[in-house]
Formats: sequence, structure tokens, C-alpha cells
Amino acid sequence: MTVVTADWQAKAQVYKDSLLSKIPTDYLLPPSNIQNDEPSHTTLRSVLSPLEREITILDATALRDAIASRKYTSVEVIKAYAHAAAIVHQRTNCLMDYFLDEALERAKWLDDELERTGKPVGPLHGVPISVKDHLGLKGREVTAGFLSWVGNHVPIKDSVIISILRNVGGAVFWVKTTNPQAIMHLETNSFLGPTVNPYNAKLTAGGSSGGEGALVGGGGSPLGIGTDIGGSIRNPAANCGIYGFKPTSLRLPKAGNFTALAGQESIVGAIGPMARSVRDMYLFITTILAAEPWKFDNTVVRMPWRPEEVIFRGSGRGPKIGVMWDDGVVRLQPPMRRALALAVDKLRGAGLEVVEYKPFGTAESWDIISSLYMTDGGERVRGHVAESGEPLLPLTEWIMQNAKVRPPHELWELVVRRETFRNEYSAHFQSQDVDVILCAPNPGPANELGKATYWSYTSIFNLADYPAGVFPTGLFVDPAIDKKDGKYDFLSAKDEEYWAAYVPENMAGAPLALQVVAPRWEDEKVMKALEIISDIVRV
Amino acid sequence: MTVVTADWQAKAQVYKDSLLSKIPTDYLLPPSNIQNDEPSHTTLRSVLSPLEREITILDATALRDAIASRKYTSVEVIKAYAHAAAIVHQRTNCLMDYFLDEALERAKWLDDELERTGKPVGPLHGVPISVKDHLGLKGREVTAGFLSWVGNHVPIKDSVIISILRNVGGAVFWVKTTNPQAIMHLETNSFLGPTVNPYNAKLTAGGSSGGEGALVGGGGSPLGIGTDIGGSIRNPAANCGIYGFKPTSLRLPKAGNFTALAGQESIVGAIGPMARSVRDMYLFITTILAAEPWKFDNTVVRMPWRPEEVIFRGSGRGPKIGVMWDDGVVRLQPPMRRALALAVDKLRGAGLEVVEYKPFGTAESWDIISSLYMTDGGERVRGHVAESGEPLLPLTEWIMQNAKVRPPHELWELVVRRETFRNEYSAHFQSQDVDVILCAPNPGPANELGKATYWSYTSIFNLADYPAGVFPTGLFVDPAIDKKDGKYDFLSAKDEEYWAAYVPENMAGAPLALQVVAPRWEDEKVMKALEIISDIVRV
Repeated sequence: MTVVTADWQAKAQVYKDSLLSKIPTDYLLPPSNIQNDEPSHTTLRSVLSPLEREITILDATALRDAIASRKYTSVEVIKAYAHAAAIVHQRTNCLMDYFLDEALERAKWLDDELERTGKPVGPLHGVPISVKDHLGLKGREVTAGFLSWVGNHVPIKDSVIISILRNVGGAVFWVKTTNPQAIMHLETNSFLGPTVNPYNAKLTAGGSSGGEGALVGGGGSPLGIGTDIGGSIRNPAANCGIYGFKPTSLRLPKAGNFTALAGQESIVGAIGPMARSVRDMYLFITTILAAEPWKFDNTVVRMPWRPEEVIFRGSGRGPKIGVMWDDGVVRLQPPMRRALALAVDKLRGAGLEVVEYKPFGTAESWDIISSLYMTDGGERVRGHVAESGEPLLPLTEWIMQNAKVRPPHELWELVVRRETFRNEYSAHFQSQDVDVILCAPNPGPANELGKATYWSYTSIFNLADYPAGVFPTGLFVDPAIDKKDGKYDFLSAKDEEYWAAYVPENMAGAPLALQVVAPRWEDEKVMKALEIISDIVRV
Repeated sequence: MTVVTADWQAKAQVYKDSLLSKIPTDYLLPPSNIQNDEPSHTTLRSVLSPLEREITILDATALRDAIASRKYTSVEVIKAYAHAAAIVHQRTNCLMDYFLDEALERAKWLDDELERTGKPVGPLHGVPISVKDHLGLKGREVTAGFLSWVGNHVPIKDSVIISILRNVGGAVFWVKTTNPQAIMHLETNSFLGPTVNPYNAKLTAGGSSGGEGALVGGGGSPLGIGTDIGGSIRNPAANCGIYGFKPTSLRLPKAGNFTALAGQESIVGAIGPMARSVRDMYLFITTILAAEPWKFDNTVVRMPWRPEEVIFRGSGRGPKIGVMWDDGVVRLQPPMRRALALAVDKLRGAGLEVVEYKPFGTAESWDIISSLYMTDGGERVRGHVAESGEPLLPLTEWIMQNAKVRPPHELWELVVRRETFRNEYSAHFQSQDVDVILCAPNPGPANELGKATYWSYTSIFNLADYPAGVFPTGLFVDPAIDKKDGKYDFLSAKDEEYWAAYVPENMAGAPLALQVVAPRWEDEKVMKALEIISDIVRV
């Protein structure tokens, strides 16, 4: 089907206009306020009412408690977040759907139930949760970043995770957030245009859960749901100064998500929370696992949450930490090095044992995972793109460099390489004798738009299927401190490219986050370690 | 490479002669004894010494206790089983390797250790365990049923499960057992010829772990290891009158096994015990899981054995049982119907609740799983067969009927169908409101040679990845009772074929077993139910 360019642009514009038209006019910003340089938090603070500010400052757990104790109604809460999300969207372009009427009706029902029964519907009673585009939410668009999907992919039922959060949790849904074309960038750009960083609009929010990163990071949502097949939760969470957790791939339910790659199971993504606090991530995970999701999504391992079984080999104060200073292929940019060094100092100061963790298999891991993402040679993605006439974006083309049609034996050989890698990585991890790895989630802070072409700090843990979380250090890029130092021996061509791409002035104010990783299935351990480490490290 | 027929036959004969030459001449039977019609147990009893009989009558747990308490030495035990295995092999053709010297050396070391330290090396100290061909055992041949592999596939280290059983368990290995060409028959035939049933040499031992079935069932091994991707543990265990358990596929380690289909992960096999008692299966499983196999084989889910968490919805006496009288495609042959009906009577008599379980999705399950076994169109298998010039066996050709080269999108669509099936099967199971399914493992007793062309009673639980075990009822085919009744409405062409294949006289004396099944990951539940049910049912 051939479509002239004007058509796709017009159709995209219709979608964008329609989205904007759903936002109450009271919530629209003047153009001057949209285009200025201040962080979106600043804008937000300037336009929210005192009640709205009071509400939107809370994390999800505090919000849940405040609703349960009748300090705020669910309706008040969703109204505050309807306003906040609208503002952050106008600053960052993070939304792809907005449905306030449905949310208000739901919030009203929750208020009535609380009134009627005297108790909350569930552990997330009245908490607004923002939802990434490609998750199935009953009656709401799914685009997976393709214009051609608009109008053709409206699920008639909730995905398993949404169903649990809604019916067991008592959550309220009011927005869906952007993901990039094909959901396969570490940025977020599609027919809707780029989602930018709430701290610095020159930078990407990250991706592929970049809409969540910008929205939650910008203060427009208390809690979001992302997915991660190469860094897509951790990267935008890190870029946008929030917490994010990618569990072991088979622990939380993904049934009812939509992608162009359904049936590709050589590399399996994970679903998880993007949040403002560790306790909110616990709230998210425990709510879902208590509902026994394995009964509704057979891919979920029947493994209840067992935090009490975590045992650290460390001093008794917490985990024994292996710090990975770089991955052996691309070194850390100065601000990230500063953040990691400061973290290590603080952790040692707090009495934790921190030893060096040697990187392992970085280049091989990228070769394998990038070959396995699209074993159809990218045909599905190209097809969905071509159908609307929208262009294949540069980062989509980039990730398809290793996408070849893999005949059965070539696929099998790649799978054998993947398994070999996993067992070797596991042996390496054990040889390092630590509880968790502490490392950067990216060579630097959020990239400038269009430049995120290095995934290995996160994707290696997708290939290994190691659970990993990120936390904000509370530090930000400061061009006065984070100068490009003089001498530098490049480890690789990519190292040189990333070094060149580091321009301190352009990255001013970008948040700096760190990553904590533990072996496959040890989600409880990595979460506990993340909690302890971030408590000590966070400024 | 073109090889004339005479060459492969000569090469196969060399292998068989070499195998026979490893057996001490004292253990060789006269031809009259090899060819007679008596069950191999009868032969065995007639040739073993009193001490050998005393030793080989014990299950693995009793044997372990007897060695630990110094009633027998490990050397005495392995000598008894060297004799017994040699006899059963001569009656059933169940071995593909025999290495007594290595085993004696090992047994001697174990005896010395027990003497030196005063305690057993591990929970399987001195217990002989027989090993299916395609498992990696350091320094021993692997053929996977292909003549072309002979001499080319001698692993330099133990597979993960063997390493645990050897080093942590204290087991002794002395034989490897046959599997069929490509390891993909529910019988066991290869360049080595057919492995026959120890109870009736007209019948198959079953497959693909048919060597284990015949050897353990014939009294020549106390405990064996099989693998199961369509019924390959349960079918030969059932056919040969022993216990067998196929766990959820990701619970026990398979790393270090060899097959022609390495890298095919659309349908994943399971590894498990073939045993004389339920307690021996517990011993096997708990020994392996206590060694934390997930550290050495990343495919294993980090899920310790937790029998204390099993809760039955039943009366308190045991599980609520759903009896599946047939699978809706092929009805049970008269002896199997008799065994199942008697079991239900006994279970109800013992106060257990037994309700009807409706079959679900049988035909669809076979269409999916048979399409996914060899998504290379059988090319690998044909290649390994062609290399030696041995013929492709009829049952290999039969299982390849649905084997087509699946381009990426066709593969992905099959995977989506598989996932849909699994979730639908799960919803069906939950709608039946039972703890476990009780059903036949095959439409009838062991098939006559070459006729096992219906897998669905076992393979549907590979597709669903539901853990399942079989137990011997203690009943046997009796042509005087198990007549072909008059009227019969066929459910399908396969039903008619299987009905025609049931010839009571030919199946006289064949054991009758039943199968117990629970949802994915509920291995502890199915084992506990199997224990309770078999205690009540077994004659």
C-alpha cells in the first residue's frame, strides 16, 4: 500500500490534535511556557493549585494512605494528576492518550466504595497509574509506535497486569504514555515526535518507556508501568531521575501487551514499575504477585515474593557490592564517573564492603542480543511502518543493523550462543563473590536527541536475564564540575563516539542514576540491595 | 558423504559386539535363555546369586540406607547390578554402554570414604544410577540414536545433573541406556535394534527413555534418569511397570545433554527420575534441588523443593481428583479402562473426592506440538541419519510428518498459538476445580513394536508444561478379562487404528499404569498426589 508523505503527516497531526483536544482547556499552557528552558517541575509548581501540589508531591504509598484515611478523595487525586500530566505532556510530549472522563467515573466509584464498605478496594485504592502505550488497556488505543496501528488496535480487555492493578489493586488509569517506533529505541520518538527530558529539553527522556520516564520524572504521575527488553525501563528511569526495576523476565505478567514481534521468544522482555520510591516499587510488585498472576499468564513463574529469604554475604549491614567501573567497551562520561565514585565512598563510609567487579562478555552480549531481537530481518517492523507511509526513523534503522532473516539452524545456533553466554556470565558472576553489581545504567546522563546508540550497560542484563534496578543519586550534571578531562584512551570506536557526544553544557541539570543488579530470579535480593544502597547514596 | 548400506550395518554390528564384549562372560546367557518368552524378571531371579537378589530387590532409598549402615558395600552393590543389568540387557536390548571397571573403582573409593570419614559422601552414596544415552557423562559415548555420532560425541565433562548426582549425591554410574533414532519415538529403536518390554518381548519398552524403562522395569537398575519432550519418561515408565516423573520443564537441569535439535526452544523437554518407588523420586529430586542447580544451568528456575506448601482443596484425606476417562480423540483400550475404573473405585472407597475432568484441546495440542518439534523441517535429523547411511526409521519419518522449515513469521505464529493454548488450557483446568488430573498415559498398555503413533495422552502435558507422573497400578493385561467388547463408536481415525491394534493375546502380562497431572510449577503437588493415589490404588 503506497501512501504519500503528506498523508501520514496529516494523519499524525489529526491524532496529536485529537489528543490535545482531550485535555481541558484550563490545563493548556501558553506557548511561552511550553517553549521555555526551565525544568518541567518548575512549570508544574507554578501552575498547580496548593491542593494539587500537596497531592502530587506524595509517592504512591503516601497517596494510598492519604486516600484510605480520607485526607483526599480519589476524585481529588485524579483531578490533580489530570492537571499535572497535562502540564508535563505539554513540556515533554510524553502522552499518547488521555481519558479523564473514564478516570473520574472510576475515582467516583472508588470513593463510593470506600464510603459504603469503610475499607479500600485494594492496596492501590485511588492511586493513578500511568501506562505505556503498548500495554493492553480495555478500550484504549495501542500504537506500539506505529501510525498504521492507530484505530486498528483497541483491545477489548485489559492485559493481565492492568486487570490485576485495576480489579485487585484499586488503581485508576487516566493516561497512556509514548513509546518509540517499534518500541525499540533507547529514546522515544515516533509519528508523535520526540519525548524530551523533563529536566532538560535538549535531551531525550530515554526509551523505550520514555513517556513514563518523562511523566513520572516530571511529576505528572505517581507511578508508571514500563517494559524492558534492552534497558527500556532502566534507561528512561535513570534519564529522568526516578526509580525503575526490571524483574527477571518471567516473574511479572506481560500477557495482553502488544508488539510487532509477538512470538519472538529468543529474547524476552520484562515488565515493571517506574516510581518515585523503592517502597512504591514494592507496593507494585507485591500487589501483582499476591494476585497469583501465573494463573492468568502461563509465562509467569509461580514464585511468590519472598523478601524474607534474602541473605547477604556482606558484613551484616547489607550486601557485598561489586562495583563495575566500566563495561570494558565504553567508559563512563565524567558526571557518571563522579556519581559512581561518590556512591562507592558513601557505601564504604557506611560500612558496606565494596570490591571491584570485572566486566565480562560485553561485546559478545551485544552481538547476540542485537541479532536475536528481530530474527525476521525487521520485516514486521518495516511492514507496519510502510503501511502508513511514515518514515523509518534513524534509530529504528540503527537497531535493525543486525536484524537478518534467520533460518531455523541459524536461529538455533544463536540460541545456543545465548545459553552459553548465560552460563558463562553466571560463572563469572559467581567468581566475583559479591551479592550485587553496582554500575552505571548508561555511559552518561541522558543522550542528546537521536544519539542513544549504546545499550550494553542495560542490555547485557536482558541477555543474562538478571534482575536490575536503577535509582536516582540526587546528583545532576554540573558543567562546572563535570568537565571533559584531558587524556583519554579509547577502548573502542563506540567509546570515542560517546566521548565526542559528551558536551557538558548541553547536559546541564540532567539527573545521574546508578544501577544495581543480581543474578536471575534474585529479584528480592536486588530490590533489598537497591533500597539499602539508595538510602545511603542518595543526596 | 555416501555410504553403502553394508557399511552402516557393519559399523552398527561392531558397536554392538563391542558393547557385548564389555560384559563379563560369566554374565552371558545361553541363547535358549535369551530367546524364551518368560518376563526378564523370571530370568533374572533364576541367575542371580542370593546376595545379588537380596540387593537388587531393594529400592534406591533402602539400598542407600543399607550401604550407609554397612550392610552391603558399594562394591557389592555395583557388582550385583552389573550382573542384573547384563541379564536385562540380553533380554531387552536396553544398554548402549557398560563400564564396569570405572564403576568398580568409584564404588571402591566410596567404600573407602565411608570407612575413612564414617559418613556417606551424599544422599545417594553407593546407589547405582542408570543414564539415558543422550545425557553427557564424562568420557562415555553419546549417540542420540544416530550411528554417525559413534566415536564423535564423547563429552569431556559431566552434564550438570550427572555432576550433582555424582559429586553431591555419591551415586555410581555403570551403564548408559538406549534411546531411539533422533530420541523422537514413543518406542526405542535405532541402529542398535529395538528395546523390548521386560514383561513381554512382543511389545515395545516405550520411548524415548525406553532403555531406562526396560532396565529399571526389568530389575537391572534401582534408579534411572530419563528425559521427556512428548512422553519420553512417562511412556516407558508406564509400559515397564515403574514410576516416572516429568517435572515442569525448567525445574531440573538439562545443560550438558546432547540432541540433534540444540537451540530449538519452542518446545522444551524435561528431565526426571524413573524409579521403583515414589520415595526414590523424592530422593532424586531433593538431592538435585538441594545443590542449587540454577547456579550451573541458567535455564533452571530458582525454585527449591517446597513440599510443605502443598494445599489440597480436597476432603483433608488428599487431593480432589478429576478423572479424565479419555482425551476426546482416542478412547482407552479395555485393560486401561479397567485399571482406571478400579482406581476410581478405590480412591472413592478411601474417601477421596473424584469428579469427572473434561478433556480439552487434544487435537489442537498435537497440531501445535508436532509442528514445533522440528522447525527445521527435520533437516538436522535427516543429516545425522544420512551421514552413516543408516535408514530413516518409520517412526522417525512418522514424527516428521508435521516437520516443515518454518520461516521466522510462521515460527512466531506457532509460538503465539502455543501461548494461547497454554492460557486456554490453564483456564480450562481452573474451571474444572480439581487439584490434579488422573488419566491414562497411553490409550492402552505398551504397543506392539512399531505401532506407537499416538502421543497426546502425554504430549499435551508437554505443550501445557504441566508436571506429570505415572505409577504402576500393579495390574497387568489379562486377555481373559480384557476382551475387545462388541460395540464401539470411533471418535477419530486414530481411535479406529488404536482399537484395531489392540490384540489382547499379544499384550498378555503387560503392566498397566496411570498418570497424575497438576498445573505448571506445582511439581510438589503432583508428587504428593501421586504418592497418596498410588498408595491407595496399587494392588
